[in-house]
Amino acid sequence: MEQYFVKEKIDSNEFKITDTENYQHIIKVLRHKIGDEIFLVDKTQSLFMATIKEIDSDEKTFLVEVKKQTRATTELPLGVTVACSLSKKDKVEWITQKATELGAKRIVFFDSKYAIMHWKKNVVEKKLVRLQEIAKNAAQQSKRRVIPEVIYLNKLTDLINIKAATNLVAYEESAKQGEISLLAQALNQNPESILCTFGPEGGFAPDEVDFLNDNGFLSVGLGPRIMRAETAPMYFLSVLSYKYELTVK
Amino acid sequence: MEQYFVKEKIDSNEFKITDTENYQHIIKVLRHKIGDEIFLVDKTQSLFMATIKEIDSDEKTFLVEVKKQTRATTELPLGVTVACSLSKKDKVEWITQKATELGAKRIVFFDSKYAIMHWKKNVVEKKLVRLQEIAKNAAQQSKRRVIPEVIYLNKLTDLINIKAATNLVAYEESAKQGEISLLAQALNQNPESILCTFGPEGGFAPDEVDFLNDNGFLSVGLGPRIMRAETAPMYFLSVLSYKYELTVK
Repeated sequence: MEQYFVKEKIDSNEFKITDTENYQHIIKVLRHKIGDEIFLVDKTQSLFMATIKEIDSDEKTFLVEVKKQTRATTELPLGVTVACSLSKKDKVEWITQKATELGAKRIVFFDSKYAIMHWKKNVVEKKLVRLQEIAKNAAQQSKRRVIPEVIYLNKLTDLINIKAATNLVAYEESAKQGEISLLAQALNQNPESILCTFGPEGGFAPDEVDFLNDNGFLSVGLGPRIMRAETAPMYFLSVLSYKYELTVK
Repeated sequence: MEQYFVKEKIDSNEFKITDTENYQHIIKVLRHKIGDEIFLVDKTQSLFMATIKEIDSDEKTFLVEVKKQTRATTELPLGVTVACSLSKKDKVEWITQKATELGAKRIVFFDSKYAIMHWKKNVVEKKLVRLQEIAKNAAQQSKRRVIPEVIYLNKLTDLINIKAATNLVAYEESAKQGEISLLAQALNQNPESILCTFGPEGGFAPDEVDFLNDNGFLSVGLGPRIMRAETAPMYFLSVLSYKYELTVK
């Protein structure tokens, strides 16, 4: 069954959906009728089964009868941020979709020295609106309770303003040097939140890695194979899910 | 430094590259000159540093001086097969590229009841040639020693002919029912080889899952979020890398 987000808190057994985008998609595009059921997630991350009761095509709203569901959350038990260097449009969009499916709470794009792409000031807002929309759709499709926040930092040094409890930088040179245990060590400490930073296709400049290391970001290897820039964050998020969702004692 | 595969065994300190495709790419496209260095992997999976000595543009061959490298392998310590239901062309290509980056030894596509795509008999060979080329390029880029084999099965039941030591089926219903430990249990047995089967976007038909279960494929959940068909194999391969390459005692 499809799931949609509503911006309000649902606190009665009837709820009127006034969001035009939801109306358009659910009623006009998917042609749902009175009696059809959908899932709704409200602003408190609660999940409801909703049965369509009335459709007002003039007002572009519809009324649903709701029933709270007790189903377990689909959110990772810790707040995870992936911070990725800018890359081409399709890769940035792809990272946003996949990182959402894989449970990231926040997706950060930042400019760096060897990035093959830079965003001009006047396009940032438009790009973020588009990426936020991709994140919302992916969150609905993967039945998440939270839409990840997508943000942009125009310099790498701004990463220190969004630090988590544990901060990592995926560093290819670490992997090449045979570093194979720091990621597991960091995860074994069960941090409340974690941030991992990923460089562009050409890698970080040495002074960028120095800056991150000096500011408490631990360089970790993600295995012996060279991954493309967009593959590494997926690897990281998959590992977090396995570690914290599938190997709990 | 770039890496290329050669089909021969390199057993002397000079080697003549006669593969037209390698010549075309290395000499014509990338314009490498005498004195330039590249990595070569031969048919025994050995890695060599190769220095270009002579270029014969009439014959379209070039001679390199080689030096064997002792660098550790980039291959997963167990043979991993991912078997994915057919999906759209770009997704099939994408799975092939990413599964190669993430270390799969064999990538299988198969037809299934709810698959949104079917391959006609007369296109199979052409499609496999294209996918094998994608796998080779991704293997070179990720510095692997092995090019994964890409194969096609025109029915799901043929999967029993390619079974590994441990055989799994990623099953969404398992995840929904809160199954969270069977994957970890299977991996803890350190199998010599492992195969995981992934359904199409619409999932497996119940009788397909029954068939797989009856034939020794264990249904496992891959966490609480619904992943797209192309994301699940990436999750699985990332987890295998973490388990067998980054958490070794």
